[in-house]
Amino acid sequence: MGCIQSFRELCDRPKNTNVRVSLPAVCFVWQTAMIILFGIFIRYNEESNPHWVEYRKEKNISSDIENDFYFRYPSFQDVHVMIFVGFGFLMTFLKRYSFGAVGFNFLIAAFGLQWALLMQGWFHSLDYSDGKIKIGIENLINADFCVAACLIAYGAVLGKVSAVQLLVLTLFGVTLFAVEEYIILDLIHAKDAGGSMVIHTFGGYYGLSISWMLYRPNLNQSSRLQGSAYHSDVFAMIGTLFLWMFWPSFNSAITDHGDGQHRAAINTYLALTSTVLTTVAISSLFQKHGKLDMVHIQNSTLAGGVAVGTAAEFMLMPYGSLIVGFCCGIISTLGYIYLTPFMEKYLKIQDTCGIHNLHAMPGVIGGIVGAITAAAASKSVYGTEGLINTFDFEGEFKDRSPSQQGGHQAAGLCVAICFGVGGGILVGCILRLPIWGDPEDDNCFDDEPYWELPQDEESIEPVLQYNNHMRNKDVGEEQQINHDPIRSPLAASYAPLHQHLKGGGDAIQAPDMNPRRRDKNRAFTHVSQKRLLSGTL
Amino acid sequence: MGCIQSFRELCDRPKNTNVRVSLPAVCFVWQTAMIILFGIFIRYNEESNPHWVEYRKEKNISSDIENDFYFRYPSFQDVHVMIFVGFGFLMTFLKRYSFGAVGFNFLIAAFGLQWALLMQGWFHSLDYSDGKIKIGIENLINADFCVAACLIAYGAVLGKVSAVQLLVLTLFGVTLFAVEEYIILDLIHAKDAGGSMVIHTFGGYYGLSISWMLYRPNLNQSSRLQGSAYHSDVFAMIGTLFLWMFWPSFNSAITDHGDGQHRAAINTYLALTSTVLTTVAISSLFQKHGKLDMVHIQNSTLAGGVAVGTAAEFMLMPYGSLIVGFCCGIISTLGYIYLTPFMEKYLKIQDTCGIHNLHAMPGVIGGIVGAITAAAASKSVYGTEGLINTFDFEGEFKDRSPSQQGGHQAAGLCVAICFGVGGGILVGCILRLPIWGDPEDDNCFDDEPYWELPQDEESIEPVLQYNNHMRNKDVGEEQQINHDPIRSPLAASYAPLHQHLKGGGDAIQAPDMNPRRRDKNRAFTHVSQKRLLSGTL
Amino acid sequence: MGCIQSFRELCDRPKNTNVRVSLPAVCFVWQTAMIILFGIFIRYNEESNPHWVEYRKEKNISSDIENDFYFRYPSFQDVHVMIFVGFGFLMTFLKRYSFGAVGFNFLIAAFGLQWALLMQGWFHSLDYSDGKIKIGIENLINADFCVAACLIAYGAVLGKVSAVQLLVLTLFGVTLFAVEEYIILDLIHAKDAGGSMVIHTFGGYYGLSISWMLYRPNLNQSSRLQGSAYHSDVFAMIGTLFLWMFWPSFNSAITDHGDGQHRAAINTYLALTSTVLTTVAISSLFQKHGKLDMVHIQNSTLAGGVAVGTAAEFMLMPYGSLIVGFCCGIISTLGYIYLTPFMEKYLKIQDTCGIHNLHAMPGVIGGIVGAITAAAASKSVYGTEGLINTFDFEGEFKDRSPSQQGGHQAAGLCVAICFGVGGGILVGCILRLPIWGDPEDDNCFDDEPYWELPQDEESIEPVLQYNNHMRNKDVGEEQQINHDPIRSPLAASYAPLHQHLKGGGDAIQAPDMNPRRRDKNRAFTHVSQKRLLSGTL
Repeated sequence: MGCIQSFRELCDRPKNTNVRVSLPAVCFVWQTAMIILFGIFIRYNEESNPHWVEYRKEKNISSDIENDFYFRYPSFQDVHVMIFVGFGFLMTFLKRYSFGAVGFNFLIAAFGLQWALLMQGWFHSLDYSDGKIKIGIENLINADFCVAACLIAYGAVLGKVSAVQLLVLTLFGVTLFAVEEYIILDLIHAKDAGGSMVIHTFGGYYGLSISWMLYRPNLNQSSRLQGSAYHSDVFAMIGTLFLWMFWPSFNSAITDHGDGQHRAAINTYLALTSTVLTTVAISSLFQKHGKLDMVHIQNSTLAGGVAVGTAAEFMLMPYGSLIVGFCCGIISTLGYIYLTPFMEKYLKIQDTCGIHNLHAMPGVIGGIVGAITAAAASKSVYGTEGLINTFDFEGEFKDRSPSQQGGHQAAGLCVAICFGVGGGILVGCILRLPIWGDPEDDNCFDDEPYWELPQDEESIEPVLQYNNHMRNKDVGEEQQINHDPIRSPLAASYAPLHQHLKGGGDAIQAPDMNPRRRDKNRAFTHVSQKRLLSGTL
Repeated sequence: MGCIQSFRELCDRPKNTNVRVSLPAVCFVWQTAMIILFGIFIRYNEESNPHWVEYRKEKNISSDIENDFYFRYPSFQDVHVMIFVGFGFLMTFLKRYSFGAVGFNFLIAAFGLQWALLMQGWFHSLDYSDGKIKIGIENLINADFCVAACLIAYGAVLGKVSAVQLLVLTLFGVTLFAVEEYIILDLIHAKDAGGSMVIHTFGGYYGLSISWMLYRPNLNQSSRLQGSAYHSDVFAMIGTLFLWMFWPSFNSAITDHGDGQHRAAINTYLALTSTVLTTVAISSLFQKHGKLDMVHIQNSTLAGGVAVGTAAEFMLMPYGSLIVGFCCGIISTLGYIYLTPFMEKYLKIQDTCGIHNLHAMPGVIGGIVGAITAAAASKSVYGTEGLINTFDFEGEFKDRSPSQQGGHQAAGLCVAICFGVGGGILVGCILRLPIWGDPEDDNCFDDEPYWELPQDEESIEPVLQYNNHMRNKDVGEEQQINHDPIRSPLAASYAPLHQHLKGGGDAIQAPDMNPRRRDKNRAFTHVSQKRLLSGTL
Repeated sequence: MGCIQSFRELCDRPKNTNVRVSLPAVCFVWQTAMIILFGIFIRYNEESNPHWVEYRKEKNISSDIENDFYFRYPSFQDVHVMIFVGFGFLMTFLKRYSFGAVGFNFLIAAFGLQWALLMQGWFHSLDYSDGKIKIGIENLINADFCVAACLIAYGAVLGKVSAVQLLVLTLFGVTLFAVEEYIILDLIHAKDAGGSMVIHTFGGYYGLSISWMLYRPNLNQSSRLQGSAYHSDVFAMIGTLFLWMFWPSFNSAITDHGDGQHRAAINTYLALTSTVLTTVAISSLFQKHGKLDMVHIQNSTLAGGVAVGTAAEFMLMPYGSLIVGFCCGIISTLGYIYLTPFMEKYLKIQDTCGIHNLHAMPGVIGGIVGAITAAAASKSVYGTEGLINTFDFEGEFKDRSPSQQGGHQAAGLCVAICFGVGGGILVGCILRLPIWGDPEDDNCFDDEPYWELPQDEESIEPVLQYNNHMRNKDVGEEQQINHDPIRSPLAASYAPLHQHLKGGGDAIQAPDMNPRRRDKNRAFTHVSQKRLLSGTL
């Protein structure tokens, strides 16, 4: 305990958000490593290399349309949209963290995809004849899935970490994911089409554990930035809707050709519709005057898709999907109302996006639903061949019964939780080291430390700017000087007005270069300046 | 007449926008009903249940790719995007009704989909051998189509109704739609691939009739909120573009495999391109200085897709599609310029989104174009087999001639109009009852009565807020008290400033919790406060 | 030289942005011409007309799924999204040019598609038996590709031209594109799956040359509008992400069925991931404090997709794709930092969106990579049949060797550059004529000259407005008068406040019609007015 205490003190040194060395270094080193590893390991599989023509003839495949590309590419693109636009925009709800939400989401997804192709490839697509990983469209989808788990974890620490920390989180997250996935899907032979366990439960607890390790007792110092703004809530709805609409593709993307994909899409579609209604009901019921809360609409409406993930390809039945969605909408919304504040206050877990309510809890429910549905499977419902197909009771698993499968599903869920919590604590330890450039408590949820923000909101002094695509280093420095409150005492006096108007998107325009209009501006600036100075004295 | 008068008086009691009881109640009851009805009636069809493997062998289907899922899933997802993002964002153009536009659109679509699966299932997919509705991907697309009609109707009453009213509108809308669709497509045996008649004409007149029944003579009291804002117009363009781009998928989603889908997509694509040019031309021509009006660009550019809906799968020919688009761009834009004000002033129809110009009129044109194209069909153009395939001249309709088909198409159009107008008046009557929580005339087009709006725009006093995902009931109430102008006399004095700055997204930030900055803030607040007080005295 | 001088003088007459005659005229005339030409030339091909049933039997095609529609429609829709949402929203980054970015993008794409179907049809799809162009899904994709080149060119002149000029730019651009494409792909028989040369190199240099011809020495007069705003940067990220996600579809849309499409998608996916990391690295490295610049994230992250375009269907290998992406991220970002300012200052090329860094340079790199990859092709890697399939070494090209192909690829690149530069200078000359309604130097990057902007940002005086869909001509004029600073002296005194608050989206609300609230407003207005007046005196 004393050891942990001293470690904590070591970690709590003053922070420095300058990542000018670390971020480029990490990006370059890792990307170079990826190129080398791809050069050694990754090749096209038989469906994506030019020998396909010969392969087709050999295997007596009648048409190019039998290439797996045509079975899965539309779903792949939908999943891709969920990863980049869905997750990215869902997190733009904070009033001044939209750049970080979309931009860092972009960065970690782009890195994670490459590392996931390698990690998952070693476990699943290694061709032992030549030691190469052979990739095709299914690998791309699986890489997207793997990255989803890391993006879920990002949701818990949104606004409180630096890009470097996120890259570290992703490196370890993808690695842990690949191992966990291998254990659950291959060793335990659990089924998890939409990844309720593998993706959502793991990703959720991974993120929550990291957030617990990175607990910031003084986070209320940046509470002014923790809310949403009207426009940022609308942006977040873009993310919500693309996630919601494409979730059927997510859950069906790697299920069996034919009825498997078909059924998984239908079940997910139904579960999601049901969740929307119960989310609205609970949101309205628990708010004074029955007003709806955007936080619930943006997040809890998606819980049904998570919870139906494992069982989507099973014979959950249409009404079963509706019931799962019904329950998840209620539980997830109540989670936002009661559980998130409780967790922050008593468990020291600060969960920015409420991923516990959207991913972790519904993921666990999904695992349980999957176990029950699997255990209840019977030949009368699935047909003899259908049962074998759906649960892959082939090879070494050919003697497994549905009830045994149910047990294995439950075991898979436990593995996912353990990996999530354990991995998160481990990675959280690493991320507490004071070398990653994370922001001060009063600087959280703010794009300012990591992004060049648009000129017009930062200054009311005339700054000559020719073209916004030309901001080079020197201009950057010059502007910095102008804004420095120590060097420019006048600027300091503007601070309250800045403070006051900064949030407004573009409430203050860059000054007018047009000589006809300029004088008016100057006059106005003069007035407000005098007024402010007199006010502060 | 006196009866109607007294009914009107009954309906015009003071309004109460508190839906805390009614909204959750309706959601829970209806969702529970859906679960029960789905349990009794809905099952997977032969392509989405595990017996597909056996079915394939039986029917000698060579590959899983022949599963209807692969023919229609990409189109389904495009249609799904149109319903949720397309319609949802198209309606965000109002400056303070974006939450309502996207959120209520989401709610009614999610409910409507379920009810549509049942209603359409009873008419079209009932398996008489076991009394079950068997669903597959085509049912999902049809449900989306059905919901589209209700969302069109929502466009007419946007900003003037409560969520409960919208759910009622959807319940009846879907029911009427299913009956009307059955009459037009099955009994009359008209063809309507893209639903010009079935969806757009019906939905348009349904919404307009409801709006006529709910006429608000004093709606100008909320005219301050009826315009758009710069950003909200850009949001609306997201809706426009996703509708525009995916309209070829909409019109081709349930047409015949092969050339039918192919041709429908081409025709729609061409009609839409042509509409854009004439819309721009008319918009510029009728505005002083030739400036373009965003209302036209957002809406009229889509009219060509509506008008080509019925004939999209016929041999309309590429130039025919261009001509249809050409005319609709002109008519729809002129409708916005002349007809909408006329309808509001003289016909007492307040049409918020101008659905008469975007859906009703182009839908009627589409029905007429379809009738003409069908009547003009000949074996020389379609080929013997092609003619039978395209118009389904099989079974009891095998002796129908193209000219007879033309007549039946026209009859279908009449049915759609009658159902729209009649159903709208009926449902409008119901919605006038003073129990639904609709807003006062001076509160229309405002998210405030139905949504928790972001903190930062409502207050400049320090309010302790730890995490925006924690707003529970108590916090909500406490904040309410702080904002109460009666209890907090100081807050009242801020009101004009609030009023002035409220629109600006986030012009006023939640105050700083950081003690170092707080004093500056306080100083500034002090000044502005004094100034305001002196100003009002 | 004197001739050019006098021509320049002729062109530099005072400008008039009223396009009320020219824009409608051009739209109507060209659309009518399209209808006539489509009537004469364009018909459905064998896969989209009703004779498909017979054609299938004749060719012994076993299933409707073999219709090219099912191979390409999902990719087509992705490309379509890139054209309209991707390019459109990418250009919304300017703080007051979002309407122009999305709206004009929409207009020129809609026109360009039609003209491209004709131009490309004459070269590639003309059926010599009846003199008709037979179109199917592949033609639609190619038309989208062709339009992409024009939209790239638009990026260079964004904010500095009128809609009429853009239509002219598109007319010539499409024409030049079709000729250039025919020379490169058919005569030279170079391969260019994703159009690195044909689309990006051509489009880039075409736009840059036009921008050079339209050089505005006093463009800094509108520098107040050249920056971005916080929200506009988030809107631009929508464009970036949809381009980034769907680029694999772009590069694979018209490649060979089967392995060709599959491999092209994988290569593009990988190149893009790699680009993101190096873009972030360079952006951070060259900014003080390591802050990221949104301009780079929005643009340079896409360079890898451009550069991998030509070689995407070749055996570039996964690591090869990563290397291409790696280099392009660096080069493109450095281009934004050093090259764009250099080009503006010394070469007189004002490149609003930095298309040189995003399209022209990466396009050239793509051409070179393609040439090298083609020259390095061997039977051992591709297989005998694979080599023939991939490079179409059939018919008159059956004796061509890979190294010869490499040379022809390089020749293709030169043709693309020549057409771009030459065509751009020619079209630039035409666009300098003083008849097109382009804006004054101090009016660039502003939606105001070409769009009716929302009421609420333009006025704080009470204006009666019933419904925003009713703005007819008369209302427009009346408002115009109210805003005229000469006729309304009071309004003029508000100007500085306007100026100050105008950027804020909706910082000033349209005044309250509600009598209860109105007085407060008036009081406040009074104060601020007095204060401002005293300030200016």
